Amino acid sequence: MTRAIVLGGSRGIGKAISESLKTIDIDVFATSKNDIDTSNLDSVRQFLEKNSQTDILILNTGGPAPIPFSNITEDNWKLYHNQLFLGFVTILQNIQISDGGYIFLISSNVIKEPNTKLIISSAYRAAFTEVFKVLSKEYAVKNISCVNIAPGPINTDRTQELIENVKEFEKTLPMKRLGEPKEIGNFVKSIIENKIKYLSGVTINFDGANSNYIF
Amino acid sequence: MTRAIVLGGSRGIGKAISESLKTIDIDVFATSKNDIDTSNLDSVRQFLEKNSQTDILILNTGGPAPIPFSNITEDNWKLYHNQLFLGFVTILQNIQISDGGYIFLISSNVIKEPNTKLIISSAYRAAFTEVFKVLSKEYAVKNISCVNIAPGPINTDRTQELIENVKEFEKTLPMKRLGEPKEIGNFVKSIIENKIKYLSGVTINFDGANSNYIF
Amino acid sequence: MTRAIVLGGSRGIGKAISESLKTIDIDVFATSKNDIDTSNLDSVRQFLEKNSQTDILILNTGGPAPIPFSNITEDNWKLYHNQLFLGFVTILQNIQISDGGYIFLISSNVIKEPNTKLIISSAYRAAFTEVFKVLSKEYAVKNISCVNIAPGPINTDRTQELIENVKEFEKTLPMKRLGEPKEIGNFVKSIIENKIKYLSGVTINFDGANSNYIF
Amino acid sequence: MTRAIVLGGSRGIGKAISESLKTIDIDVFATSKNDIDTSNLDSVRQFLEKNSQTDILILNTGGPAPIPFSNITEDNWKLYHNQLFLGFVTILQNIQISDGGYIFLISSNVIKEPNTKLIISSAYRAAFTEVFKVLSKEYAVKNISCVNIAPGPINTDRTQELIENVKEFEKTLPMKRLGEPKEIGNFVKSIIENKIKYLSGVTINFDGANSNYIF
Repeated sequence: MTRAIVLGGSRGIGKAISESLKTIDIDVFATSKNDIDTSNLDSVRQFLEKNSQTDILILNTGGPAPIPFSNITEDNWKLYHNQLFLGFVTILQNIQISDGGYIFLISSNVIKEPNTKLIISSAYRAAFTEVFKVLSKEYAVKNISCVNIAPGPINTDRTQELIENVKEFEKTLPMKRLGEPKEIGNFVKSIIENKIKYLSGVTINFDGANSNYIF
Repeated sequence: MTRAIVLGGSRGIGKAISESLKTIDIDVFATSKNDIDTSNLDSVRQFLEKNSQTDILILNTGGPAPIPFSNITEDNWKLYHNQLFLGFVTILQNIQISDGGYIFLISSNVIKEPNTKLIISSAYRAAFTEVFKVLSKEYAVKNISCVNIAPGPINTDRTQELIENVKEFEKTLPMKRLGEPKEIGNFVKSIIENKIKYLSGVTINFDGANSNYIF
Repeated sequence: MTRAIVLGGSRGIGKAISESLKTIDIDVFATSKNDIDTSNLDSVRQFLEKNSQTDILILNTGGPAPIPFSNITEDNWKLYHNQLFLGFVTILQNIQISDGGYIFLISSNVIKEPNTKLIISSAYRAAFTEVFKVLSKEYAVKNISCVNIAPGPINTDRTQELIENVKEFEKTLPMKRLGEPKEIGNFVKSIIENKIKYLSGVTINFDGANSNYIF
Repeated sequence: MTRAIVLGGSRGIGKAISESLKTIDIDVFATSKNDIDTSNLDSVRQFLEKNSQTDILILNTGGPAPIPFSNITEDNWKLYHNQLFLGFVTILQNIQISDGGYIFLISSNVIKEPNTKLIISSAYRAAFTEVFKVLSKEYAVKNISCVNIAPGPINTDRTQELIENVKEFEKTLPMKRLGEPKEIGNFVKSIIENKIKYLSGVTINFDGANSNYIF
């Protein structure tokens, strides 16, 4: 039976992906912070001792609270460097992905259009995107596909916290609504279900036509 | 019943998309050059008289033969301006897409990494990508999703013509093979089948990790 | 003596470049519509008969009036296809640039962040950017540098026409002002004056930190 | 008198920039590792105590040795996180740039086209590019211009170390040569000398037409 590890699988986009994958008979390990805390490298290493192999890996984690640039401390930077970058790096250095498997990264559209509020997220998610792009070429040899999904405004607890008046915000969006987590869940599921392998080394905006950059 | 028009539906990627869509009970009109020739605006207008409405539209057309820049004539430019740009523009100006519908554009990865051999294709496909991006925001209001798929090396007759020694070429690719048209066909199908709507205004590289640009 | 041809050299950015180049003792031919009209290929060819060679070439032309997409006629598209694309192509196919020379393209930041109002400009300037990128590699062999400058909001007659209330608009810009044409003029001049050759094949946003895309 | 701080000013590109700026009567502090070591945050903070203000700041530092991804240790990541990211962040959080000043970042073209060999550099330089882009909008209010220069293959000691056979490598480049550090030095100088302020929030490839990405 195919096995998937979904990091941050207990809520938001991670939870939606877990639920979608379960519908196609995949054995899903939807991790919570008790299983692995990517901001803590010891926790990451302990997780890897017990989970050294998988067919499908979903790299997903919550984002930092918005902090004005001048107030971000060295400790803040280092914490999120672990959570958004070094934790994922440590996983990829140590976990074995089965030949023909999949790795999905859930990043954010702020890597293409960074913003002040989410400056930490913009920086470290962009950094990991570079690593993921480089590795996609190495994984390709083993027929492992690497897909980076860069969500825009999605209807999660986090968005509800970040945006003051969600109803008003939705009116400014091209589709007049937030995206639903299960749209991403079903997207991931359908790629796997249909054995689409040549989609790899790609960053896919998932934002309801909200971004302005041509690509 | 849902209706799809697939331009260039008689061969290559267009044919594969047509076949995939038929498996999910969509009424597919897979056009051939006899039905519509996008390089001929009169042909485009005649087609639109009979086909003024659809639920799903696949904008797809073959590419120009490789011609060295200094040898490209005014007539060459104008022909491919019609085929790769103005024909599609004329269609979008005149066809009605049902609310909740989909438009897929099959472009090419040369819009991001242009090359000498395919300079005409790079130019006009990039031009249409700009139009498609702008329009994605207007279509979003009617819940119509616009997805631009930018294929890399796919196993079509055209690739066989463009590449001298395909077997040798495949060895240079990260996945050691060309992509299969049906991978794109199934990708398109799965987005429609799963009613994924928030994926819009996006250009998706489909190239087996072959491109080098970060996004 | 070094010779420069500045297309659209009688006003706006073209005029500013002409004036800057004259300060460093360059023999500048600042063309007006009487000399060459890039929207008319016959005019372009007549110009080329008399001007078959130059050291420095500035590809610059005004943009189209804003027209809503649904109202753009076939004639509109074809006119601007000539003006923004095919005229420049014809020039590069026929003019000889001296070894060690320069070609500057004045495009627009709408090629990276297209907008509804300037959809024609976004499309054809992007198309020519592709051609220019490909050719930059061929010109490099002869030590000819190709630089694409993509201006944002610059204080020209055109901006005054396009923007209803310029004073209010300026308050929304990061620098609280439009850019000055002579900033672009001096930028071009300084690259030539300092014999900076390795800057080639590049698109340079010139927009006072106004664009949002990371690159 | 105008004051400039050039980090990494004792060799390579930093040295060339220092020398160019001196020719236009700028008081240049070309730092060496003895003055400030950006990989050591204590050293950075000590430097800032003595240097809390400048008119012009050049953020520049050497890159990491190439290490295969699987061999990069946690300590390696953390060291270069400091050197390429957190050191620069700490400087920008604490130094005062005079109104009307300039900040130049010397990054690398690997932020757009990452490669295996330089994976650390690709990641952290991309991360800082995100921060720099966001801050360019804030600095704009004080008429401070932020310019990110992304060099390709430049004739420095580092390139000589990284590339095995430089002569052979040069033949593969469009200009058949490496770029010269003083071309970048003169480029920086000319922007300052000509008071070009509207060039801000931009990443400029400086690679002799070597990159393949359209922008």
